[in-house]
Amino acid sequence: MRKAVIIGAGMVPVGEHWKLSLRDIAVEALLNAMDDAGIDKVDSLYVGNMASGSFVEQENLGALIADWAGLGNIPAVKVEAACASGGAAVQEGAKAVLSGLEDVVAVVGVEKMTDAWPSDATRYLAYAADADWELFHGASFVALNALIMRLYMKTYGYTEEDLALFAVNAHTNGAKNPYAMFKRPITVETVMKSPYVADPLKLFDASPVCDGSAAVIITTPEKARELGVPKEKWVEVAGMGRAIDTINLANRKDFLTLKAAKAAAEKAYKMAGVTAKDIDFFEVHDAFTVMAALSLEALGVAERGKGAMLAKEGQIAIDADYPIQTMGGLKSRGHPVGATGVYQTVEAVLQLRGEAPEGIQVPDAEVGLTQNIGGTGSNITVNVFRRV
Amino acid sequence: MRKAVIIGAGMVPVGEHWKLSLRDIAVEALLNAMDDAGIDKVDSLYVGNMASGSFVEQENLGALIADWAGLGNIPAVKVEAACASGGAAVQEGAKAVLSGLEDVVAVVGVEKMTDAWPSDATRYLAYAADADWELFHGASFVALNALIMRLYMKTYGYTEEDLALFAVNAHTNGAKNPYAMFKRPITVETVMKSPYVADPLKLFDASPVCDGSAAVIITTPEKARELGVPKEKWVEVAGMGRAIDTINLANRKDFLTLKAAKAAAEKAYKMAGVTAKDIDFFEVHDAFTVMAALSLEALGVAERGKGAMLAKEGQIAIDADYPIQTMGGLKSRGHPVGATGVYQTVEAVLQLRGEAPEGIQVPDAEVGLTQNIGGTGSNITVNVFRRV
Repeated sequence: MRKAVIIGAGMVPVGEHWKLSLRDIAVEALLNAMDDAGIDKVDSLYVGNMASGSFVEQENLGALIADWAGLGNIPAVKVEAACASGGAAVQEGAKAVLSGLEDVVAVVGVEKMTDAWPSDATRYLAYAADADWELFHGASFVALNALIMRLYMKTYGYTEEDLALFAVNAHTNGAKNPYAMFKRPITVETVMKSPYVADPLKLFDASPVCDGSAAVIITTPEKARELGVPKEKWVEVAGMGRAIDTINLANRKDFLTLKAAKAAAEKAYKMAGVTAKDIDFFEVHDAFTVMAALSLEALGVAERGKGAMLAKEGQIAIDADYPIQTMGGLKSRGHPVGATGVYQTVEAVLQLRGEAPEGIQVPDAEVGLTQNIGGTGSNITVNVFRRV
Repeated sequence: MRKAVIIGAGMVPVGEHWKLSLRDIAVEALLNAMDDAGIDKVDSLYVGNMASGSFVEQENLGALIADWAGLGNIPAVKVEAACASGGAAVQEGAKAVLSGLEDVVAVVGVEKMTDAWPSDATRYLAYAADADWELFHGASFVALNALIMRLYMKTYGYTEEDLALFAVNAHTNGAKNPYAMFKRPITVETVMKSPYVADPLKLFDASPVCDGSAAVIITTPEKARELGVPKEKWVEVAGMGRAIDTINLANRKDFLTLKAAKAAAEKAYKMAGVTAKDIDFFEVHDAFTVMAALSLEALGVAERGKGAMLAKEGQIAIDADYPIQTMGGLKSRGHPVGATGVYQTVEAVLQLRGEAPEGIQVPDAEVGLTQNIGGTGSNITVNVFRRV
């Protein structure tokens, strides 16, 4: 089987890009990644995006972005896996390379959320849940996650303060990332003083509605050499896993286990030939603080019910054993939904190249993991990246 | 490189499925395809769909459908390329098999359009065009195609009656397809008497808003043998091509040439080792009659400006040289947008197995082609299938 390596990475700062349209930020991220790789054309394009139809009345994103970037008559398609669209697009891009049909593939994750009314944004995000059996009954996406948070706290005896530590860690790191949306460190008190969105979930437990785009260029080692990309830039897509779970939370026997993350991680670890112990940093999907805890458990970093203990014991900081959200995670860097998985990928690339900003570079990082969740854990991707 | 073969195909009749939801029809088509292949599990699922978020407020279709079909914790993702989503999903499914990462892949195309108000359906379909530079100025998708039809007629001296022949041929064949939405033969007079939607485009030049789902199962020849699928059922995915063009019609130097179809066909022919002359039947994307003419030209079946001549000269019928729309095409079978490319694939499989309904079986069909268009020619897939 061929191998896939990332040879270019680019992004735009996450934020509220009022004056730019979806195509503007996507093309900027894409061209940044192509510049980073030193190339001016690609064989095909994969776009990770969740809900451009709803947010900006635009589908056909493959054609839109490839056209606007001047890439010519190449194949271009959008990949949707709810909030895991970005992670899935990276996998589809790598698969295209592994298939032998394409040599140099661009992957762009993009979401433009702030052009919609905030109440509509909440509605569109809920399309990741079950329209007929959850939304119809009035459950928003935040409400479903609040149920999970409540049960997690009750089952294992955690407090809201305990979970707030994930948000604090994210902001501590994100404050040093120039591409992060929120660059201000916070304390547990900041989280506790923020208003409830859906009890017990507070504003600072949740990631923001925002705009963003990130991109990577994937190819084979042979082609990377041919293109003259210095080996220091290469990052191997070493492992890939993806799995679904029931889309409807009520159909899950146990909703404190991210079964899809377990299945995805198992596959990704196996493909990369590693275990959780070999991973130097984890970019997990902290759309809500409780999801960071559950993710660490599903990835095999913590035992069941012990995910939040890692935060309490200070084990998730940059210089600790299990650094997570090294560039701010979804909470501080921001969560432009369909773009998030590609942001995580770009951040992993920077860490593995040793190009992360000062203060948040994980020392001697050799293997990194990104985990991207769609729905309430119903569609999860896990990717393992390795320094070449 | 591995090879990809289709070992199962299934669908539901195209129509207005008022009492069924998107997941119902998708799961039925999927299970029909799995039954046809004689299997009860798959390694992964690709869903071709254009605009489920807008039409039925549901994204995350991969999880939704895989979950509802009881497929377990497999990878599942949606692929969007506007109205070419189905054709693109077939390609992504085949690529997954070629990549070596998955052995048995299911591809489902689905669209549930009739749950939306008709005026909203027109709006959602227009998301395939350029939201900022076409929709914003009030151009609907039908209006853009009317411009193309007007220019085609004016440039090459065709009449509305000439183009109506494509609709007549589609209905002649569709009348014999039990899965077609419109099973009534029509005449040129029927088309001419139908009201204008956007002059010169009449109701009967256009494909209908409808619901539908179709599915195929793709694997390798080795795995097909291992699964015990009789060789008579195999159909090789022999060639695949996909390309974009400018999303905005006004940016095209020549909008009577489907440049993306040319590029896609070139790639697909090359991969399959065939030319247009080797193809026994063509399922082209006749969302509007003029698109059938332009497609035949782009595919190399007719010279520039001569596409409509094939219809006038009676060369597109089942027993003629270039049979097209053998099961009714988009006009008569129906055009549930994101599902269409998979319907075309299922129809090609039936033709190549000799299982097409009486009266519309192309005699001794060995090689068939499907062409699926997204936008006004901005995202086009061409697939070549071959009897094994």
